[in-house]
Formats: sequence, C-alpha cells, structure tokens
Amino acid sequence: MAEPRREAPIETDALIVGAGPVSLFQVFELGLLECGAQVVDSLPHVGGQCLELYADKPIYDIPALRRCTGRELIDRLQEQCAPFATGFHLNQQVSALSRRGDARFDVVTDAGQQFVARAVVIAGGVGSFQPRRLKINGIERFAESQVFYRDPGPAVVCGRNICIAGNGEAAVAAALAAVDAGAASVTLLHRRDDFDASDAALARLHELRVTKRLAFVFGQAKEVVERDDRMSGLVVDDNAAAIRALPVDVLVVLLGRSPKLGPIADWGVALDKKQVVVDTERFETNCPGIFAVGDINTYPGKRKLIVCGFHEATLAAYAIASLVHPDRAEPLLYTTTSPKLHRLLGVAPLGIEPGLQPLR
Amino acid sequence: MAEPRREAPIETDALIVGAGPVSLFQVFELGLLECGAQVVDSLPHVGGQCLELYADKPIYDIPALRRCTGRELIDRLQEQCAPFATGFHLNQQVSALSRRGDARFDVVTDAGQQFVARAVVIAGGVGSFQPRRLKINGIERFAESQVFYRDPGPAVVCGRNICIAGNGEAAVAAALAAVDAGAASVTLLHRRDDFDASDAALARLHELRVTKRLAFVFGQAKEVVERDDRMSGLVVDDNAAAIRALPVDVLVVLLGRSPKLGPIADWGVALDKKQVVVDTERFETNCPGIFAVGDINTYPGKRKLIVCGFHEATLAAYAIASLVHPDRAEPLLYTTTSPKLHRLLGVAPLGIEPGLQPLR
Repeated sequence: MAEPRREAPIETDALIVGAGPVSLFQVFELGLLECGAQVVDSLPHVGGQCLELYADKPIYDIPALRRCTGRELIDRLQEQCAPFATGFHLNQQVSALSRRGDARFDVVTDAGQQFVARAVVIAGGVGSFQPRRLKINGIERFAESQVFYRDPGPAVVCGRNICIAGNGEAAVAAALAAVDAGAASVTLLHRRDDFDASDAALARLHELRVTKRLAFVFGQAKEVVERDDRMSGLVVDDNAAAIRALPVDVLVVLLGRSPKLGPIADWGVALDKKQVVVDTERFETNCPGIFAVGDINTYPGKRKLIVCGFHEATLAAYAIASLVHPDRAEPLLYTTTSPKLHRLLGVAPLGIEPGLQPLR
Repeated sequence: MAEPRREAPIETDALIVGAGPVSLFQVFELGLLECGAQVVDSLPHVGGQCLELYADKPIYDIPALRRCTGRELIDRLQEQCAPFATGFHLNQQVSALSRRGDARFDVVTDAGQQFVARAVVIAGGVGSFQPRRLKINGIERFAESQVFYRDPGPAVVCGRNICIAGNGEAAVAAALAAVDAGAASVTLLHRRDDFDASDAALARLHELRVTKRLAFVFGQAKEVVERDDRMSGLVVDDNAAAIRALPVDVLVVLLGRSPKLGPIADWGVALDKKQVVVDTERFETNCPGIFAVGDINTYPGKRKLIVCGFHEATLAAYAIASLVHPDRAEPLLYTTTSPKLHRLLGVAPLGIEPGLQPLR
C-alpha cells in the first residue's frame, strides 16, 4: 500500500482560511506590510460566496464601485493582490490546527498539505460550502459505499438501481450519465417536477422520461429500507396519501451546497451564535495569533457587509505585522507617497505613472 | 445697512461636516437606510484632501481599485451617491452647533446657512483647510485692512507698496496682478527663489524682475514696522547677516492651505491629541447624536486610511438610522438581492440589468 502523499510543510507569516473577497484584501494589506500569506479554501475556485452565490449578480455597495458583479469584484481583488506572491490551496479544508512551542501554528488540510504559520486568519465567510444532506436517520452509515454527494462514476452505477435526489444542473447531468453507464434503473427524486439545466439536457431528460428509461418520483425520502446490512431502498413521502418504497442500490444526493462552520468550531476560539468573537482593535480571537475577519466574525455593531470586512482585514494586517516584525515601529505609510510601498507594489515612482499627470 | 442674508433653516436627518471621500460614502450608506443628508465644507469643491492634496496622484489601496487618482476616487463616489438627494454647502464652515429641546441640533455656518439635524457627523478629515499664516507678533491686528490671505483686488492694491509672501501659483498670479493694477511697488517675499507657476506666468515674472517693476526678496518676515497704528513695513531676515526693512502698505499671504481642527474643538466632543474620540460600535462621540468618521476620529487600533473610514461611515449610518427611524427593526438588506434597495438606488430589478447576465 502506498503511503498517502504528504506535502512538505510551507512556512508562512499568515495562513488564511477562506478565499473570498475579504481574504483577498487581507493578502493585499499583509503584502503592503511585508507579510506573506497562504490561502486555503474548500471550494475549487477563489472567490467564496461572491462566486458561489452571486457571480453574475450586481453588488452596489462596494465603495467607489457603483455596480459590479461578484465575479468582477473577485477579478479586481485578485489583480490588486497580484504583486504579492501567495499560494492558493483549493478543494481542501483545514482539518487540524495546533500551537507549537515557538508561538507558531501547525496547520494541516484534509488534502495533506501542511503549514507552519505565525498567524492564522479565519476569513471563512458564512462557513465552508458543504453538500446539502438528506435528513434521514442512519443514512450516513452508507456514505461513500451506497450514498454519494457527487456523481460516483460509471463503475459504481452500472447494473444498479440508481436514485438521484435533486433538480439542478448537477442532478440532471448525473441522471443522464447513469442512463449512459447502463444503470439497471434511474430515478430522479425531488419535491418539484421542475429542472434547472441547459435546454439540451432538459430535452434529453424529457425523451428518456417519455421512453421510460428514466423515472421521476415526486416527494422526499424519509427512511432507508435495509436488507442484510445494506441499503436496498428508500421510503418516499409525497405529502399526500402515497407513501412508496423505491428500490435503491446507490443514492446520489445533489441538492447544492450550503455553508457550514466546519472544523473551525473545534479550534478553541470563542463563538457567539456560531460567529467567531473578535476585538475591534486587532480583530483577534480569544486565542492569541488567531484572527477572524469578514462575515464569520462578530463584535458589537457588526454588520455582515464586504466593506466592513475590508476594514477588519486592514487592522488585522497591522496586528499580524506587529507579530511578524516585532522590532519594526514604522509610521503609517501611504500608497500615494511612499517609495517603499511603490517598490512592494511594483509600480513606478510618483510622477511617471503612464496615464497620470506628471507632478510639478 | 442691509441685514446679513440668513437662509431658511434646512431640516435634515444628518448634517455632515466635511465633503471628502468618507463623507460621500456616508451620504450613500445613509441613503440606503432612508436617511437624508446635507454636507458642509470649507473648501470651494467636493473632495476634501483627495482633491486638495493628491488630485492627480495615484492611490493603490482602495479595495478592488488597483489604482485611481484622488480625483477619480471622488468622481466615483459622487456617482455612487448620486441616487440620494444631498445638499452640498461649500466655501463655508460650521460656526455654531447647539442641542435643541427636541433632541435635534441647530447648526449654523459662517455663510449664514442654518440647519436643523437629527444627527451630526464630523467627517472633517485632517481638519478644515485654512490659509497658512505668518508667525509674526501682532500681525492679525491688520487682517482684512492691510493683511490678506487672498488677492485683495486692484482697488486695494493700486498706488500702494505691496508685499506678497509665497512662491506658488496663487502668489505669482497676485504679484503679476498687482503690477497690472498700478501698485507703487511689488515685492515677492520667500525663502526660496524658485516659483511654481505656468511657463507663461514665469516668463512674465522674469521680465518684470529684469525691468525692475517687481522685486524678489529672499528671506522671512519677522516683525511688523508700525507707524501711527498702521503697518508701514516688514523686517525681513534672510538668515545671513542682512536684516532689512521693507516698506509695505499691503501684505498678501499666499503660502497655501493647511488643515486645522477649527470650531469642532469647541463643540464639547472629547478629544485625544486633536482627534475626536469615538466608540467602535456606532462611531459616536461622547455627545449623543454627534458622530465622527474618517481621519478625524480615534479609537483603539485606528489607522488613518480611507478603507477604514468607509467602514466607520457604514456603522455610523446604521446608528443614525436607529435614531431617525426608531420604530424600524429591519434585517440587514443586501444591495444584490433587496428590491427595496434597488428602488432606492433607482436600478432595475435583478435579472434585467443591461450588460449583466440574466438570472436563471
């Protein structure tokens, strides 16, 4: 058996949990203060809620941006923090965090990536986006053997009775793929006979339903039917008289993702109603060296607005810089006038910016 | 004698002192919460420090704006707050503020404009920009009779000995105008023989110096020479051996503007090192109903950065809205999803924004 792959630990000034807009501005502000950062996110892309929830919807309350979409905001913030080398570690969650003897933190992700960080910044937004689960007693016993929160692929599907819970693009695609993979039967299960997918996928779905190669069942799964310690079916309730049992060998749950606090709850940081409690001077938690910025934190007056997260990340950056560079006591530098900041940003000195008027 | 003109009082939810970037975002956030605002500024233009100090210089640390000039930032913020009707009262300072019996404030400017406001927001930046003064004992006695902090015009200048202190565009222009107005003599006084003006103005200055119609004197004015209770001259020290007396009937001081806290110091708000002390929940001063945002305030962790001012203005807006609409307890609304905010912003409902992808 091969050992699971373990990456060499990455040393960094700040390990940022979450890759949303506030995290990106955190990278930028840390960069201006000569602190490096590494970013971990459970989603496969940078952008957090902005891309997950409103990629193409307009936002009107980012200062000096009258209107931008979630995607445009993320693009702009990525461009802004580009001068600062940053590692983005996507599709993985921080699974363990512990304090070392040297006042730094050991951090490990569920993909095996290790970090040694002077500070940890929880920029977790509303939490990590996890697949929505069915609320059925005992169902998690079959996870990854008979119950999947992703398309399990043709090898698992072939010759079996497949039930797919969901009505979105991913659910429709998995149902069509199950037919193609030679499933014994394919059933789409949902509370609405109303599917959100491309026109081509919807046309194919309609054709397979008409030719009885795919069934739609209206209702919600309520119970697992077990035989010989295996799941053999689901009891489905349609909220009317009809309660029926479906034969099911493989259940694929594709009901979208919803945010969960996740392992952060186990790190020892004080919580108030699932929000991480911070002070308003450093945006630090009750655990020294662990900070929290953006929608995940709470303090008197807190509003879950991106503009507030930008401020929180800025003050957290100064606090982290005081840990990373304890001997430095610099006056506040301005990006408009400081040659040092111009060098860090990789921009020309004042007066010879292309497209800007020269200074007198 | 005509009575000085008094404007009718304007009733408003919030009177904002200062018209810089944080003030403009304050107008926007108040507008989203259905609070109106009026803005007073001592400068003749909206924009505060952004236009006074770095109109054409680049700023790199506004979130999601990789680079913009001070002027562009102000233009963008003005565009953003345009949906909300706001009065801008420029070229005037708040001269008096008093609390009324009904928990509102009476506010008067030195131009005679009166306001009745539920809340006052000090968004005064580094203070109001006041003309730099010469530090000479007793000189203020002659202010507006023989000493001016602006070009006093040809009627005052004609036939008199004029001294202009300064080396910038305004000083050069006033010197050339004094020659044209038939001054008995015109002297430019400064510590540097180095003038900042247009090429045409500099060429004319050179010509007038060569033809002895205008003199340059190197040094600093140290004392007023008085005769019969009038200023008759200035004692000038060039830091070398030479101390000389210049005959001066009219002194025009054009040394630029520097920010001063001004009358705010007399309003009873607690100060710490000339900064207004606020809490971090409401950004309210020790005087209930008086708030302070941006560079003028202080609290633990304060950094004088525009991004922090945007956050402060946001939380102050919620606090002010709770005073203006005490019976309303609304959940936080988002500009992306709230039809009410779309109506206030005057934008189309979601999904039919031109240039944005329609929603599914």
